[in-house]
Amino acid sequence: MTPTATSTPASPSLTARYAAPPTVPADVLTEVIAQQLRHHSVRRFASTDVGEHEMTAIIAAAQSASTSSNMQSWSVIEIRDPQRKHDAATLSGDQDFIRQAPVFLVFVADLARNRAVAERAGGTTTATEYMESTLIGFVDAALAAQNAALAAESLGLGITFVGSARNNPHELAELLELPHGVFPVAGMAIGHPHADEAAGVKPRLPQAVVRHRETYRPSTGDDIAAYDATVAEYHSSQGRPSDWADKIRVLVRDAGSLRGRETIRDDLARRGFPSR
Amino acid sequence: MTPTATSTPASPSLTARYAAPPTVPADVLTEVIAQQLRHHSVRRFASTDVGEHEMTAIIAAAQSASTSSNMQSWSVIEIRDPQRKHDAATLSGDQDFIRQAPVFLVFVADLARNRAVAERAGGTTTATEYMESTLIGFVDAALAAQNAALAAESLGLGITFVGSARNNPHELAELLELPHGVFPVAGMAIGHPHADEAAGVKPRLPQAVVRHRETYRPSTGDDIAAYDATVAEYHSSQGRPSDWADKIRVLVRDAGSLRGRETIRDDLARRGFPSR
Repeated sequence: MTPTATSTPASPSLTARYAAPPTVPADVLTEVIAQQLRHHSVRRFASTDVGEHEMTAIIAAAQSASTSSNMQSWSVIEIRDPQRKHDAATLSGDQDFIRQAPVFLVFVADLARNRAVAERAGGTTTATEYMESTLIGFVDAALAAQNAALAAESLGLGITFVGSARNNPHELAELLELPHGVFPVAGMAIGHPHADEAAGVKPRLPQAVVRHRETYRPSTGDDIAAYDATVAEYHSSQGRPSDWADKIRVLVRDAGSLRGRETIRDDLARRGFPSR
Repeated sequence: MTPTATSTPASPSLTARYAAPPTVPADVLTEVIAQQLRHHSVRRFASTDVGEHEMTAIIAAAQSASTSSNMQSWSVIEIRDPQRKHDAATLSGDQDFIRQAPVFLVFVADLARNRAVAERAGGTTTATEYMESTLIGFVDAALAAQNAALAAESLGLGITFVGSARNNPHELAELLELPHGVFPVAGMAIGHPHADEAAGVKPRLPQAVVRHRETYRPSTGDDIAAYDATVAEYHSSQGRPSDWADKIRVLVRDAGSLRGRETIRDDLARRGFPSR
């Protein structure tokens, strides 16, 4: 594991991820890390089904992620029924790739299970009414979901995270029969990539902008301008010109930027997450 | 990838993870999934340092995780300085394994960077005042952290997530010079496992309890009693008898169960996450 060479050419996956890729020796790029670096969202799926064994392995990977105090404050709903998947897609930003994918997972924060555990033991559940418990549920669900994503990709499948599974939480809860204390965190479309699928690996901010040594270093206008140029070049290569900083400006502008999710605090409270 | 046999013996890692391990053919257990299944928290570290190249690869893996609308609403602080690490450990539940680990990462939700991007472009940042933006920051940070954890483990390193990095957010922010709009989500101690480290793979709830097909199925008393027995057996084998359901009862009982984190909603608001 000791780094021996700094002159190794940058790996193709690091080159795709960064405009100025860091140089690391090949033995540091394990098979796992190489798989992680290759991640890109897949939004075009073949009609091939995803097998039961594959899904079992993917969920086992999700359950193997870390979880706060082994509370396992999350669950996942596996949707395969075409009509239910269609309806879930309509509620989740009306995105066709969700209908096309053979499996649509909805990862949920789950306070209901542990409340039932405590109540059966004669206990109270006051701690679950606090914001901290909402955050634990969301973080636990996210850790599990990321493991599921990577597991699926290692099986040759493609995935896309669907944040718009939070757009219509009450209607989605009705469709999936989610009880009080269970709230959608993120959807995930899973399937075999279509033969014509050719999405690229998206460049990220330079490490120096995201990784802070000892103390936080605010980003500068130059940092962002450089990344903006990188993203513009990437999107041109994909035939979709785009300006990252301008996209961010629109995404954070006002309540309307949240496309319905500006009510999520009330939605959470109504669904058993008082978050006080 | 087509499953051909259902009579394959359960893999050792699945057997550790589940009391009644699902049977899947060996070709479904990719190297990535096998690594995920082997996860266990490491709280005893050797004095060996973690190399710069390893950390670069780990952060590249973290940055390769999915992120909401490519907003990358997270950052990570890498603490190596012994005094700062000691102080961070004291603020994060006073846990010695953090002092022992050569690297302590603090993953943070970061709204500050995108606010600066929008403001430089002459925009407003009202959307970031909503609960949805807080959740995006926490979920983005968690997705990145889980990739970092697995990348580290693939390099032979051990990790433990540290939720108590949220115990004293104002003091930790001062130590790490976190600006308004940056909040700790989770710490992660990273190092080479000590030669005497022998933590086991912790069993999780049965898949049938966490994985819901088409619609949510509430867990039953029997489901929980069975898992309780599994955990009791595991902890006996580790010399630490324990009752899972009773631990949950204590963890969700009241505000005191949150060990200081019952104030996190106010803490967030004070630190630039109004979460309305």
